[in-house]
Amino acid sequence: MSTTSSTFNPGKGNGEPVGIAILGHGTVGSEVLRLLNKYEDDLVHRIGGAFELKGVAVGDLAKVRPGVPKELFTDDAMELINRDDVDIVVEVIGGIDYPHEVVLAALRAGKSVVTANKALVAAHSAELAEAADEAGVDLYFEAAVAAAIPVLGPLRRSLAGDRVLSVKGIVNGTTNFILDAMDSTGASYDDMFAEAQRLGYVEADPSADIDGHDAASKAAILASLAFHTRVTSDDVYCEGISNISATDIKAAQSAGYTIKLLAICERLIDDNGQETVSARVHPTLVPRSHPLASVDKSFNAIFIEAEAAGRLMFYGNGAGGAPTASAVLGDIVGAARNKVHGGRAPGESTYASLPIADFGDVETRYHIDMEVDDRIGVLAETAAVFSDRGISLRTVRQEEGGEDHARLVIVTHKAKESDLAATIESLNNLPAVKAVNSVIRLEGE
Amino acid sequence: MSTTSSTFNPGKGNGEPVGIAILGHGTVGSEVLRLLNKYEDDLVHRIGGAFELKGVAVGDLAKVRPGVPKELFTDDAMELINRDDVDIVVEVIGGIDYPHEVVLAALRAGKSVVTANKALVAAHSAELAEAADEAGVDLYFEAAVAAAIPVLGPLRRSLAGDRVLSVKGIVNGTTNFILDAMDSTGASYDDMFAEAQRLGYVEADPSADIDGHDAASKAAILASLAFHTRVTSDDVYCEGISNISATDIKAAQSAGYTIKLLAICERLIDDNGQETVSARVHPTLVPRSHPLASVDKSFNAIFIEAEAAGRLMFYGNGAGGAPTASAVLGDIVGAARNKVHGGRAPGESTYASLPIADFGDVETRYHIDMEVDDRIGVLAETAAVFSDRGISLRTVRQEEGGEDHARLVIVTHKAKESDLAATIESLNNLPAVKAVNSVIRLEGE
Repeated sequence: MSTTSSTFNPGKGNGEPVGIAILGHGTVGSEVLRLLNKYEDDLVHRIGGAFELKGVAVGDLAKVRPGVPKELFTDDAMELINRDDVDIVVEVIGGIDYPHEVVLAALRAGKSVVTANKALVAAHSAELAEAADEAGVDLYFEAAVAAAIPVLGPLRRSLAGDRVLSVKGIVNGTTNFILDAMDSTGASYDDMFAEAQRLGYVEADPSADIDGHDAASKAAILASLAFHTRVTSDDVYCEGISNISATDIKAAQSAGYTIKLLAICERLIDDNGQETVSARVHPTLVPRSHPLASVDKSFNAIFIEAEAAGRLMFYGNGAGGAPTASAVLGDIVGAARNKVHGGRAPGESTYASLPIADFGDVETRYHIDMEVDDRIGVLAETAAVFSDRGISLRTVRQEEGGEDHARLVIVTHKAKESDLAATIESLNNLPAVKAVNSVIRLEGE
Repeated sequence: MSTTSSTFNPGKGNGEPVGIAILGHGTVGSEVLRLLNKYEDDLVHRIGGAFELKGVAVGDLAKVRPGVPKELFTDDAMELINRDDVDIVVEVIGGIDYPHEVVLAALRAGKSVVTANKALVAAHSAELAEAADEAGVDLYFEAAVAAAIPVLGPLRRSLAGDRVLSVKGIVNGTTNFILDAMDSTGASYDDMFAEAQRLGYVEADPSADIDGHDAASKAAILASLAFHTRVTSDDVYCEGISNISATDIKAAQSAGYTIKLLAICERLIDDNGQETVSARVHPTLVPRSHPLASVDKSFNAIFIEAEAAGRLMFYGNGAGGAPTASAVLGDIVGAARNKVHGGRAPGESTYASLPIADFGDVETRYHIDMEVDDRIGVLAETAAVFSDRGISLRTVRQEEGGEDHARLVIVTHKAKESDLAATIESLNNLPAVKAVNSVIRLEGE
């Protein structure tokens, strides 16, 4: 296979500094600006050439932004992007539609793009990658997943000679903070949500975090890179944490588990040897002894299992202005190096094009908490519902219930989602079952 | 700064497959060969072009090597390296002198080199980097530190826009196995060394592992990349683990610590604001609550602290055929991509050229275990020796001693190595001190 002229970047080679434009001046944008300035001497050496900040596009020019020369700001992002002396466009705006428009425009104008926008990448990776390829420029987005924790780079490069089996991780700091706080205090979801809000961990619209959509975008990106297959956020099964109760946490604790919101990307192989890819986000029981269980506060951690490398873990700050800016700056240096010296970063790789698994075929274990009649024979009736669907039980614990009912806590062996769903439906129809309080999936040995 | 023709690699562009030569067919070499074959289809896609294994150089052609076509083997490494159709040379021989010779020859012949050889890189990085630059080729060595755990890539690329403050890690599996086994069983060093030997964790010549030289090579490589400064193994202060006794482990445990062999690379700033770089390897007390304390068996883990990113941890298998081969293959894909598409990986970066700190100026805390006369006033006399050198004490524990002596276990606040050394000398001359049993450094809060 030979290189085509459209993907070949011979480098600037004209001695001009690499021109950088930043779109957005919020928490991340202002930190990127500060660090570009602070580390300028170092960055010039690391790039192997000079760079120059050409402008910062903002929505509101009237807003006071101390410490930055006013003439750098513009409210005309398109004009800034299209300037001849701009080589790299850094998108740190947030949202999807407008970033989509400006990032596409930048790529089509032959600018390399660095973005921290997980929602954008997860929704439009194919279109963006195609535009980057056509223009022969780079599209970098390390900051989109777990901020400064290097995980996309390792997946793209370090593990390029290996076969990734699974990627499992805590990739949303807000929900981890809430679940960790519930676990350590015994408090309710509502109280710990309020606490997270008080500490500034919760966005104005909390749903992206709480309902798991932020983690689902990251899962889509991780699965795409890990399995060389295009996975978008629509392909990711997603459940948030707002139904997790203090009772669930307590039940998890007494069985030796803690509850984490995990993004789980797996390579599955069916009985015919057909490989598929699954990506899902949901609250998950994790054994206390598992390294992910000790990831506290708003930290992130990602477990990668690869055939030759074995198990790897990456841990750190997965959010915040400075950690996100660190990842953005690393990408800027990469894109600028290529502008100066030629060459391109590995682009989108979707050659494997594995089918997305039907969610009903995904197998995992389940922790089921229910209220049943307090009489002899109920346990046998309930167990029969599971065995009818071919689901075998690992543990059954009978706990103290109320006046007229008992509480059953069941942990299953591995079972298919479709079988489990049918089982829950049957349980709900069983006269002896008063209520299925919660069904939570379970990972780890 | 413009690109020079010598550092510019325009790519092959001739449609020929990338030719790969492997030097060495031991544990790692045979695994590289196996995986190149097994993953061939994937690798072609990830490289963006075909590759071909041109030959494997071995010392003994007569040795039976099942599963590999005999015609691939040669005992003439130089002839193989210099073949026109070889683009990438993979060095997995081990040792220093011969690899040094062949790797240099390969680079000078315009071949990109992938090596897993930490001792070679730590001893000769400057000369190798210069040869790679002159030929405009790549020199990759991700596998040299912590095998498949991606840490050099992240330091070179992901953190290229940040300022690394320290790198601390467990980078030798053999010594971690022994110390972990001593910690969990209470057994002696000799017994657990024998156990490690029985399990195949110990090389024929164990001194590289046990005396810390292997870890010191890795520390030199990590410090070089982290601080953009040339650090060789000669610059690394190095103490091994063979003096660690079961008593030391027990004393550490009762104070809430475990003992690990750490490689510690730090950016130091003196009172005049002058930055220096320190790299050292020694047994270290680590608080049980520190993530490095829970790294058991032969696992590796590396902590990186950077100004913007904060604290990052990387964890996994740091040795073994498959994990090392995984890293080597990742590097082969990187080097092959550049051969096909043009561009070069970031090369040696030593622009900062920070001075190496005088070891006497390095500051840390110390855990000192000594035998003293069992009489009133000894504690005051001993404490005075410390305060005379300006060293303040954090905890002093008096433990049960023998018939005629007491045991004092002291933990200091941060102090300079030179002051501590002088203090120990004074203690040894103090009539009240019968023996200083052990001095072990201490990290973490």
